Amino acid sequence: MLTKRVELQGHLLDARVLPGVISEVESRGGDIIVEESTIGRTKDDASRVIMEVTAPTPEAMTEILQVIGSFGGRVIHEEEVDLQPAPKNGVFPEGFYSTTNLPTQVFFAGEYLPVEDVEMDCAVVIDTRDKARARCVPIHRIQEGERVVVGHRGVRVLSLAHEKEKEVFSFMGSEVSSERPKTLVVKDIALKMQEIRGRGGKILLVLGPAVIHTGAGRHLERLIAAGYVQCVFAGNAVATHDIEHALYGTSLGIYLDTGASARGGHAHHLRAINRIRLAGGIRDAVEQGILTRGVMHALVTHGVDFVLAGSIRDDGPLPEVISDTVKAQDAMRTQIRGVEMALMLASMLHAIATGNILPATVRTVCVDINPAVVTKLVDRGSHQTMGIVSDVEWFLGELCDNLLA
Amino acid sequence: MLTKRVELQGHLLDARVLPGVISEVESRGGDIIVEESTIGRTKDDASRVIMEVTAPTPEAMTEILQVIGSFGGRVIHEEEVDLQPAPKNGVFPEGFYSTTNLPTQVFFAGEYLPVEDVEMDCAVVIDTRDKARARCVPIHRIQEGERVVVGHRGVRVLSLAHEKEKEVFSFMGSEVSSERPKTLVVKDIALKMQEIRGRGGKILLVLGPAVIHTGAGRHLERLIAAGYVQCVFAGNAVATHDIEHALYGTSLGIYLDTGASARGGHAHHLRAINRIRLAGGIRDAVEQGILTRGVMHALVTHGVDFVLAGSIRDDGPLPEVISDTVKAQDAMRTQIRGVEMALMLASMLHAIATGNILPATVRTVCVDINPAVVTKLVDRGSHQTMGIVSDVEWFLGELCDNLLA
Amino acid sequence: MLTKRVELQGHLLDARVLPGVISEVESRGGDIIVEESTIGRTKDDASRVIMEVTAPTPEAMTEILQVIGSFGGRVIHEEEVDLQPAPKNGVFPEGFYSTTNLPTQVFFAGEYLPVEDVEMDCAVVIDTRDKARARCVPIHRIQEGERVVVGHRGVRVLSLAHEKEKEVFSFMGSEVSSERPKTLVVKDIALKMQEIRGRGGKILLVLGPAVIHTGAGRHLERLIAAGYVQCVFAGNAVATHDIEHALYGTSLGIYLDTGASARGGHAHHLRAINRIRLAGGIRDAVEQGILTRGVMHALVTHGVDFVLAGSIRDDGPLPEVISDTVKAQDAMRTQIRGVEMALMLASMLHAIATGNILPATVRTVCVDINPAVVTKLVDRGSHQTMGIVSDVEWFLGELCDNLLA
Amino acid sequence: MLTKRVELQGHLLDARVLPGVISEVESRGGDIIVEESTIGRTKDDASRVIMEVTAPTPEAMTEILQVIGSFGGRVIHEEEVDLQPAPKNGVFPEGFYSTTNLPTQVFFAGEYLPVEDVEMDCAVVIDTRDKARARCVPIHRIQEGERVVVGHRGVRVLSLAHEKEKEVFSFMGSEVSSERPKTLVVKDIALKMQEIRGRGGKILLVLGPAVIHTGAGRHLERLIAAGYVQCVFAGNAVATHDIEHALYGTSLGIYLDTGASARGGHAHHLRAINRIRLAGGIRDAVEQGILTRGVMHALVTHGVDFVLAGSIRDDGPLPEVISDTVKAQDAMRTQIRGVEMALMLASMLHAIATGNILPATVRTVCVDINPAVVTKLVDRGSHQTMGIVSDVEWFLGELCDNLLA
Repeated sequence: MLTKRVELQGHLLDARVLPGVISEVESRGGDIIVEESTIGRTKDDASRVIMEVTAPTPEAMTEILQVIGSFGGRVIHEEEVDLQPAPKNGVFPEGFYSTTNLPTQVFFAGEYLPVEDVEMDCAVVIDTRDKARARCVPIHRIQEGERVVVGHRGVRVLSLAHEKEKEVFSFMGSEVSSERPKTLVVKDIALKMQEIRGRGGKILLVLGPAVIHTGAGRHLERLIAAGYVQCVFAGNAVATHDIEHALYGTSLGIYLDTGASARGGHAHHLRAINRIRLAGGIRDAVEQGILTRGVMHALVTHGVDFVLAGSIRDDGPLPEVISDTVKAQDAMRTQIRGVEMALMLASMLHAIATGNILPATVRTVCVDINPAVVTKLVDRGSHQTMGIVSDVEWFLGELCDNLLA
Repeated sequence: MLTKRVELQGHLLDARVLPGVISEVESRGGDIIVEESTIGRTKDDASRVIMEVTAPTPEAMTEILQVIGSFGGRVIHEEEVDLQPAPKNGVFPEGFYSTTNLPTQVFFAGEYLPVEDVEMDCAVVIDTRDKARARCVPIHRIQEGERVVVGHRGVRVLSLAHEKEKEVFSFMGSEVSSERPKTLVVKDIALKMQEIRGRGGKILLVLGPAVIHTGAGRHLERLIAAGYVQCVFAGNAVATHDIEHALYGTSLGIYLDTGASARGGHAHHLRAINRIRLAGGIRDAVEQGILTRGVMHALVTHGVDFVLAGSIRDDGPLPEVISDTVKAQDAMRTQIRGVEMALMLASMLHAIATGNILPATVRTVCVDINPAVVTKLVDRGSHQTMGIVSDVEWFLGELCDNLLA
Repeated sequence: MLTKRVELQGHLLDARVLPGVISEVESRGGDIIVEESTIGRTKDDASRVIMEVTAPTPEAMTEILQVIGSFGGRVIHEEEVDLQPAPKNGVFPEGFYSTTNLPTQVFFAGEYLPVEDVEMDCAVVIDTRDKARARCVPIHRIQEGERVVVGHRGVRVLSLAHEKEKEVFSFMGSEVSSERPKTLVVKDIALKMQEIRGRGGKILLVLGPAVIHTGAGRHLERLIAAGYVQCVFAGNAVATHDIEHALYGTSLGIYLDTGASARGGHAHHLRAINRIRLAGGIRDAVEQGILTRGVMHALVTHGVDFVLAGSIRDDGPLPEVISDTVKAQDAMRTQIRGVEMALMLASMLHAIATGNILPATVRTVCVDINPAVVTKLVDRGSHQTMGIVSDVEWFLGELCDNLLA
Repeated sequence: MLTKRVELQGHLLDARVLPGVISEVESRGGDIIVEESTIGRTKDDASRVIMEVTAPTPEAMTEILQVIGSFGGRVIHEEEVDLQPAPKNGVFPEGFYSTTNLPTQVFFAGEYLPVEDVEMDCAVVIDTRDKARARCVPIHRIQEGERVVVGHRGVRVLSLAHEKEKEVFSFMGSEVSSERPKTLVVKDIALKMQEIRGRGGKILLVLGPAVIHTGAGRHLERLIAAGYVQCVFAGNAVATHDIEHALYGTSLGIYLDTGASARGGHAHHLRAINRIRLAGGIRDAVEQGILTRGVMHALVTHGVDFVLAGSIRDDGPLPEVISDTVKAQDAMRTQIRGVEMALMLASMLHAIATGNILPATVRTVCVDINPAVVTKLVDRGSHQTMGIVSDVEWFLGELCDNLLA
């Protein structure tokens, strides 16, 4: 079957356009799906319908398009994308098409190519070395001379309405209120995680330091051990305070099992960093028997990938931390391939950074006690994102109760 | 033993004042307790010591005070309070002493009387009908001619450092952070509640509507049934949404067991109010078998007192709601006597109102997901107040796990 | 011209329904306006169009409706409202229609009556004493036997899209962000206020105590003097701290001109209340020369109406405060008639209460530094509401610069 | 004059210790300053006084210390610091002393050396190449073999009470409330800035993107032109949106002069980055006449230093952005020398990072509309920090009114 998108405009209501088009299409063995329709309020207002027309053969398509043309319709997105070479490394040509995080196709050499690794605020490069491919490329990785899509011509962004399987997340909307029952929501997230684990899928966790400070690390360790975590993004602080806890029992100098302050505890995190730097790194510290518990220990011993991305707030940092932010983004890009679900837990910086590079199709759950953070994350255009304004310690406890009881 | 408070001021360091005073006191069988001391930074700066002096006999006290006088010391708070009659109903005399919520004594007729029902922002009235009594009186209840304390003379405010038994709450400070381990805190609160219930003490809950919206009402019902709640303060909204849930399964039109919106659900709360008004009231609705579950049902069937105080936001209101705010305050004042612990759960208006009339000696726990609310409550001068920034649904769940498991 | 609303449902795309209907209507001198249209995605999905049909004569209308009926269309909202008597004072009949704050009409005795004083969460009463009238009635004011609309039949809620003149407010949406340029927004609000003042319209201010604490009272006084304020809603705290400032120079014990704390300043608000109670009230205090400056003084001397509604947090209260919340709501209802614009400034309780009784057609501006408050107010269904997350002191200063420079 | 710190402990009140010590010291031409004093509550409780003793000659000091010793006093901080070599590059020796941001001295070779470039969470290295120096060294810059202070022995942290000249900031405390008059506070900040500029001092601004989004960039440009800004720390976003505004009139796609959204405006920031990358950098774009207005333009043309520190959220980044966070910190450390005042405006990440490396002696003002951010910054131990919860646009406008009117 061949497919074209067609636009009809005009005073649809006082003409017989639409029914006419439909009966013509059907009489030729084709079919239509209405994608958008705007009916004018009065008979003098313009109406507009965009529909996808399918036809069994090229000949039928030609005929159908002629008929549609005679009704004043026009085929849209027929044109090829415009391409221009990147003027130098790290610079797009003027007028480049700037991507969204939605599934995108570009019309090149007579067909729609899906844009691979789609990510917002990038450009689309057409590669024709083997067969034609369209790739999403962030600005710092563009090479002089690569052919970049400019303008909107030939670019087609699919809405997520095309995606099926919204069952689990559908009822949630992008609810961010703390004033809603959350028990059910957690149950649904747990079901989705079981399903993903069941088929060998990939779940990403993005962590902020409150996960450790609140004592919720113990829940995370259980999730990791049970195979519910395939990848973790975090910063120096999460790893540092987790290791501080493993070595000294404290997080930010507070004993997690009594709530009391340790004498000289404000320096514990720096002593923890120093120990790990002496050992050579987190993995080395695990091997040498220095680090024997905690979230980072669990990640290392269960072979879960992690990216620790640096920030200018960091002390140290720990050896595994990627202090170059551009390299850290690229490491995250590599890990993000294949992720089906992302849980962002009490993180702002790393969660926003992840949101920036995540395709809109990935189910995303943001948990934070601060509604402003949740709103910021949910508003970034990730359409499958659900925000939960709540306490991360209890969220993880309840998630464990659902998954591991 | 007799007691006087004495102040020494001057260049204590280059004189022999303090040791001199002490040896004189001791030689007469008395004793001292230093209450405050400020030692000047240089020998030319003033120093100041306030101490409580005890003596075995009036004669010894007289001698001791003479000696202290000769060192330049002076007895403080010796003077009788000044009294003036209230000029008319509902008006204090100019210059009235404005109370705090701390334990307070007034020196009248040669002795310190404890101020009964102490509450901040009131005046102190001396009653001498039977025996001399000092009462804390809010402005709207003062009667013309009652004798009111004016100025600070003869008034003594005790700090809570004098109170013992801070064990349980001591480690908590007035911590409001969401970034702390809360499991232990909840356990301590549970222990305290068990202790209070064990000795037949009184626990007050102040509730906001999020308790119902989040589905935490089911936990509350269990606490009520188990005898952990002796008194509840709330508003029209809490009762209304609880009854809405009991009658229609929804709170604010959202089904609590599925999270879905009910068709026409925005009117459910008004229909619930209407039903109860038709029945004559909440208690009548329970008796008539209309209201068969929920928090209000539990309060009625377990004979727990409640005060529903009206606000200008209210729809209806329900018949039990006291729409006059001054009368509602007075109803709360009556109930507050004997309360040993107050849990303020996701409430701002009613929690602040309760804080206004609660003595500082009552242990108070404020739970809200909004740190601004918690800070506001904790800052109102209630020294035994602990704030927890967290999700009320999970707080109550965890509290139940601790108390009822 | 006669008007009916008509619904067409079915497979509109493969039939000739719509064009058919239109040509029939036109041939009889009528016209249509499409109000809603949902076109099915495939030819098997249902489509649905709601349109308003006008006809020159009753005969033409009858014919048109017959034709529409033959196409499967049906007239909607044709039916008379169902009425039931209120079973007793303060109780609606079961199944009562619960109002929104949008312009509403009810079909009674063959015509649409506009619902007067429309307000959300009330019922509609039909009065036929003189001529038929429909009134919006809050539950506590319903009288036994009054005839109340039940169900949705015959009720028509107009969207605000019908309202013209959104020019000024249109660009604002219901923007609540603090991260937007606000200079222009303030300028637009100022223009609107000038326009309303120019034609003798009514502007309502709802005030919270931060207006006084921040020292913004001086801006308010200028707005009042210049005739930009026709009505003020506030609570005991606003008036108390304004008077505290007028009498002692402090608000909550802080000198507004130096930022320093006054000795004993925590009692100033209670002393201020006491003075006014002694004088007999705010107006008396102005007359007696006790109160000579401040916002309340400006309101009294410029003859601006104000409602001070009580809350259970209040100390005192001041004599003018209406401590009964139901009566206070009714006093606000009386004042709200004719209000064209409402500015809600750093108020939560009184702003929500005002939002509850305000028709959706009133332009409303909410200013608060807390985004949660702004969101709560903007979300309450007032469609002409704009939220500004900002500092009320500077908002009022900038507003004055625009209006009074 | 020679100086020693001495501690007296014991039952000071029933002995004649303190006066005895004082008269002995004075009789030898010395003097004392009491630094701390804790007087026991009863005569059996321990008391404790720490004082600084000065003596005119070494002989007098020796005698004085003998007398003090005979009273049971002991000289404190007499001991030399303990030093251990760093075991390898980037690793401190176990037990290293972890710094605060307060002025610190270490006792080495018989004298107290001030610790240079003091910054929290670092170690102290003793250098003896020329003359003995103590330097504060962050962990990533420690070289194998450098001699690092371990333990607390010989380390003396000075409180800021020793610092004079708190006049301007003193009344402010670390007030964070939005409910206070701020006009005066802004006036005081302006006075301080004038004073610093007057003597050629250095003022640092740390900027977040809301400065640009709110349209406050125009105020900043005026401050820069008037010489009130010597150094700016910001991130890629601030520079990007400022340049977006300079090139397209928008920030985040919103026209700052109308508040309207630009078509395709979401891509403007990336187009702005691309233009600057093509030009070679911000400075190049200014030279080439591409960038002709805005904050970055003002910084370049007025020769003000700036550090743009990268984060993992960044698009691009712009060429001047230091993407390596460790190098960015070091660049900030270099610039921070000599800063007398830091204004942190609507920034969280960069403000916290700056707070981490700023000595406690630098006057710091944090302005943010979110009280949580202000609290976080003010709580980080910077004792001279004042938080203002307000709108950055209006803060900068008011600051300009004070400085430039």
